Amino acid sequence: MQFEGMGDPYRIPSADKAALVDSLSTTGLRRIQVTSFVSPKAVPQMADAAKVSSLVTVNPEVAYTALFFNQRGLHQAIDAGIYQIVGQLVLTASETFAMRNLRSTRAQEIDTQRSLVSAYQAAGVPVTRVAVMAAFGCNYEGQVPFDTVLSLVETLATIVSDAGESLEEISLADSMGWADPAQIRSYVAEIRSRWPGVAVSLHLHDTRGLGMANALAALEVGVDALDSSVGGLGGCPFAGVAAGNVPTEDLVYLCERLGIDTGVDLDALLRSVEIAERVVGHPLPGRTGRLSPALLHL
Amino acid sequence: MQFEGMGDPYRIPSADKAALVDSLSTTGLRRIQVTSFVSPKAVPQMADAAKVSSLVTVNPEVAYTALFFNQRGLHQAIDAGIYQIVGQLVLTASETFAMRNLRSTRAQEIDTQRSLVSAYQAAGVPVTRVAVMAAFGCNYEGQVPFDTVLSLVETLATIVSDAGESLEEISLADSMGWADPAQIRSYVAEIRSRWPGVAVSLHLHDTRGLGMANALAALEVGVDALDSSVGGLGGCPFAGVAAGNVPTEDLVYLCERLGIDTGVDLDALLRSVEIAERVVGHPLPGRTGRLSPALLHL
Repeated sequence: MQFEGMGDPYRIPSADKAALVDSLSTTGLRRIQVTSFVSPKAVPQMADAAKVSSLVTVNPEVAYTALFFNQRGLHQAIDAGIYQIVGQLVLTASETFAMRNLRSTRAQEIDTQRSLVSAYQAAGVPVTRVAVMAAFGCNYEGQVPFDTVLSLVETLATIVSDAGESLEEISLADSMGWADPAQIRSYVAEIRSRWPGVAVSLHLHDTRGLGMANALAALEVGVDALDSSVGGLGGCPFAGVAAGNVPTEDLVYLCERLGIDTGVDLDALLRSVEIAERVVGHPLPGRTGRLSPALLHL
Repeated sequence: MQFEGMGDPYRIPSADKAALVDSLSTTGLRRIQVTSFVSPKAVPQMADAAKVSSLVTVNPEVAYTALFFNQRGLHQAIDAGIYQIVGQLVLTASETFAMRNLRSTRAQEIDTQRSLVSAYQAAGVPVTRVAVMAAFGCNYEGQVPFDTVLSLVETLATIVSDAGESLEEISLADSMGWADPAQIRSYVAEIRSRWPGVAVSLHLHDTRGLGMANALAALEVGVDALDSSVGGLGGCPFAGVAAGNVPTEDLVYLCERLGIDTGVDLDALLRSVEIAERVVGHPLPGRTGRLSPALLHL
């Protein structure tokens, strides 16, 4: 396979991105977030979201998802034709990060969520998931009070129930890698106690080296889902300092060691890490990807 | 400060190594392992161990230590004049790794420990510490049975008590990054139950991405000491695949977040990470070192 991107994130060919997604879709992963339908001016790396989507060879066993934050993005994701559209509402616990990342005030964010609800309902998509970004802290504002996070979840949960919809999942996103393991445990416990029966998921970044320690804490309190990225790829261009999510391969390896079945073929995933590194043109931070399968399975 | 090493581990000037040690000695760290007195043929990177030692500006608040595995190394470390000589005995849980790393069979390793005891006693050094390398697994042999580790600790503890000495510390070294958090907890508990009152320390490598998760488990069971390396520098040339220890700065940051006082000034430590990266000529894996102090302390 040839990769022509040469490591410039603005110039990675759409076909290379799709090839990476196709590789991941053969590993046993059951949910893959492919791209983001966001402003091509603000995030030129994602300007080819529709094209990438069109190049993916759909594996019917996989739920493909895309990120979007407004009605325009929602409709682009629907139009792409390959996505499981999750009716998700999002608020940001740091108003400074919201302004930088989404160019929105808190009030504008809330308005956007209300209009998204209408758009979801018009499209026949149940509104089931709420998420809070920067839920553990912010590179512009510092630590974020947990009360703020709880109040935003409450706001979103009310929007969901006011719309006659049923909340199924609450996601806390540690967008800039501020969480620590003690917070992971106490936040998850408090969310569960306030919204019993609702699934809790976490989105962890490794900005401060605690990603895997936080993942351990999350797995041991039994969170329902953890986001990760192949090789630890990624990082938000508006986060001040960028680091990717916890590496999928390290997380799968940790799960294997803890006896948690992921259904993922780690050897196949290591091949995807290799592809990801060729696509972006530089080594990625995940550690397990540096090992030959023989060194993993001795 | 000028660094002339250009990243070649065989050519890093001794003065640059000493400058890194001197930088670390101003961070609040109270114990710094400077170098290894080992065969210059087998490990040319350490051929300048005596020279590096002579260039260190000794901070009387810091205990400087050096690694050695035999009488020759012990005497070189003593002659260097700056080291706190710890009377340590070491065995390797994987016989394949012992042969590659130390060119010794198990029987030869045990003989060496006995002769080390005599050498320690002749030098007036109390024999207080025993360590097992490859205690969690081996890149040549795979997982190592814990019974093997326990039996090696027992062998070493017997050598110590037969010599009329008193065991104060047991160290388990995860030399090739095979441990998982559940093992950390159960191994530490078992060692404590068999050798009550003896301190337990761990030496963790991040070969498989679990270094920080293992450190979390270790801190939460209250181990007495954890080894780490600035920036996550390091890795054994005979380990098959090399990865450094858990990064000191990430570990200190984790401790701060968990409310564990380390006495280390994290800002000063970040300056040492920068020096370490200039000395080796490439980025190191630690994450916290990539942040400006402002992003750590918001």
